[in-house]
Parts: sequence; C-alpha cells; structure tokens
Amino acid sequence: MSFSPKILELVTALRALPGIGSKSAQRLAVHILEHQQEEGLHLAKVLKEAIELVKRCQFCRTLSETDLCRFCSSPNRMASQLCIVESPMDILAIEQSGSFKGRYFVLMGRISPLDGIGPHELKLHELESRLSEPDLLEVILATNPTVEGEATAQYLLSSIRRAGKKVSRIAFGVPFGGELEYVDGHTLSHAFTSRQTL
Amino acid sequence: MSFSPKILELVTALRALPGIGSKSAQRLAVHILEHQQEEGLHLAKVLKEAIELVKRCQFCRTLSETDLCRFCSSPNRMASQLCIVESPMDILAIEQSGSFKGRYFVLMGRISPLDGIGPHELKLHELESRLSEPDLLEVILATNPTVEGEATAQYLLSSIRRAGKKVSRIAFGVPFGGELEYVDGHTLSHAFTSRQTL
Repeated sequence: MSFSPKILELVTALRALPGIGSKSAQRLAVHILEHQQEEGLHLAKVLKEAIELVKRCQFCRTLSETDLCRFCSSPNRMASQLCIVESPMDILAIEQSGSFKGRYFVLMGRISPLDGIGPHELKLHELESRLSEPDLLEVILATNPTVEGEATAQYLLSSIRRAGKKVSRIAFGVPFGGELEYVDGHTLSHAFTSRQTL
Repeated sequence: MSFSPKILELVTALRALPGIGSKSAQRLAVHILEHQQEEGLHLAKVLKEAIELVKRCQFCRTLSETDLCRFCSSPNRMASQLCIVESPMDILAIEQSGSFKGRYFVLMGRISPLDGIGPHELKLHELESRLSEPDLLEVILATNPTVEGEATAQYLLSSIRRAGKKVSRIAFGVPFGGELEYVDGHTLSHAFTSRQTL
C-alpha cells in the first residue's frame, strides 16, 4: 500500500461505512485531502455533533435531537393512526409520498431469529404504552415485504389485537410504472391472489 | 423533509463528498446515527486529524504526513527515473502493478484552460529543481490519455527536453483482458497506428 499511515487510517475509517468499498474509500480520502479540506473539516465537526446530539424520540423512537420528534410534537398529525415502520428511512419515504398524516412508531430493526433479534432486542414493550392511548383507532403495519418484515408484522398483529385496536397492513403488488415482464414471481403471484373485484 | 435540523446538516455535509448523492447521504447519515455511532465518532476524529496532519511531500508533492513521502525518502527507489502523474491515486495504481521502481512527481491536476488551470496553477516551476538533479536520466510521462492529460504531457515535453533528459510516454492501446469488440474506436485506432513490428 502506497499511502502514509494517517491516510490509510482515514481510508479504513471511511471503509467502515456501509456501501463504501476499498476503492471508493481511497478515492474519497485522497479527494478530501487534495481538494476538500474545508468540507472535510466541516463534515468531521457535524458528524461528531450529530452523533452526540441526536437521540431517539421518546414516543416514536425515530432519530431526533429533541425529546419529541416533529411528528410526535405536531398538533397537525392525527393521533388516531399509528404507522409501524422498521427504520427512520421508511418514514422519509412515506412522508415523501404524502400518503399518511398520522403518527409513527419505529421498530429500529425487525424480528430476525437468525441474527438473534427478537421482541426483547427491539424493546417492543415500548409499543404497549402507545397502544393503550385511547385516541388511537388504527395501527398500520408498514414493515418491509421480506421474510423478516412479514414475521415482525405477524408478531405485532396479536399484541395490537389484544389492545383492541384495528390493524391493517399496507398493500403489496405490482408497483406503478413497473412492467409485468420485469416484476418478480413472488410479487406477481401475490398480485393475483390479492386481486380486487371491480 | 422529515429529518431534524442536525440530521439534515449531516446529510448535507455528506452530500458535499464526490460520488455521494442525496439518497446515499440520507442512508449513510441514518445508518451512522442508528448503528455506527462509534465508527462515526472515530471517522470524525481521523478525518480531522488527517486533514490537519497530511501535507504535500516536499519533493514529489504527493499526500504525506511526513516532509518526505515514503518513495522520496526510500533508498530503494531509483533516482534515475522520474514518473510524472496527475494524482496520488495514479501512484497507487502504478505501485499495485509493481511496474516502476523510480520516483514520482505529482502534478495535482492537469493543464485545462477551460477550467482556468495552466502551468502557473499547477506550480510547474517546482518540477524544475527535480529536472536539474544530475542522477536523473529518464522522465516518464504518465498523465491520463485524455485531451487534458495529453496537452499536459505535450507541455511538459519541451521543458524536460530543455533540461536535457530522456523523455518517454507510457504506452496506450487495447488493454489486456479486454475484447476488441468492446474497445472504443479512438483506442483501437491508436492501437493500429502504434502497432509494433514483430
């Protein structure tokens, strides 16, 4: 390796990030040191600050630097609907679609026995207090359509029913703009079994 | 946007890096804050240290935290050959090929009049002292085979000849492992005009 120790250390630290391989890390490190020293120092500062400041919202557990996130503290969001998602990134996607005006609960993962992640690891008992809110009428399960996401939805189903709330699952099927030819068999088969009578 | 201000600030700082788009920056920020706080703090620390410590080698101008880089300070590298490259990343590629045992000179860019980069901006006068070294016998031009890289090589050619040194340019042609079918016309045409008699 032709880099000096400190550059190598930076390359290694960059490689620890998801989606950044060995070559990308080298290019990033050299580019920052050559051309973006100021932006690099700014990133170092903001990164440290964000990690130190950002915590979990006390109600929905999404990432937020305030005790309550902007959804949980907003009077404009309906307390009657609660959407359960796996990650804060899912909230971003749902908000961009503008299709939901209720509140969220972030699982911060999914039940995955193979990875040793069960209800205890996800601290699912924290959901109980949300489910006992009298204003809450419907819980929407928006975990991913993967094996783990489905298992998580199934697990949650029973505790939500026990709390006497209406539960729904977001619809799965052929995505708009997609072409049937390129849609996978599992999705197509689901689209057929869940077909809607017109 | 559904993120809190500090997270947004981190997303913006990550987006300033080359090759990291809006979506990647969001995923990186959330991933670091959710799962890699320790790695993130380490990166912030190393990034700051590297930017503060790493400077240019006094002889070849590559990135190094010591006054002389490991190539310029090594007694094992031949002082008779000097390879001129555009960036420290090029040194990495050449070193990985194990094809050169001389010393380097890093241009830190290329002559590009459209971007306002001329010999003055590249501080090419710093090359003069290297060219006047009596041990130096051959200069190898290894700038990229782009319009700017070629123009830079042409410009350097005259000053190196003036210094009375032998000059060579790395060979261009069809890459090994490549298939003629997929090689671009410019490269193929060069491969024909520069064909070697057997």
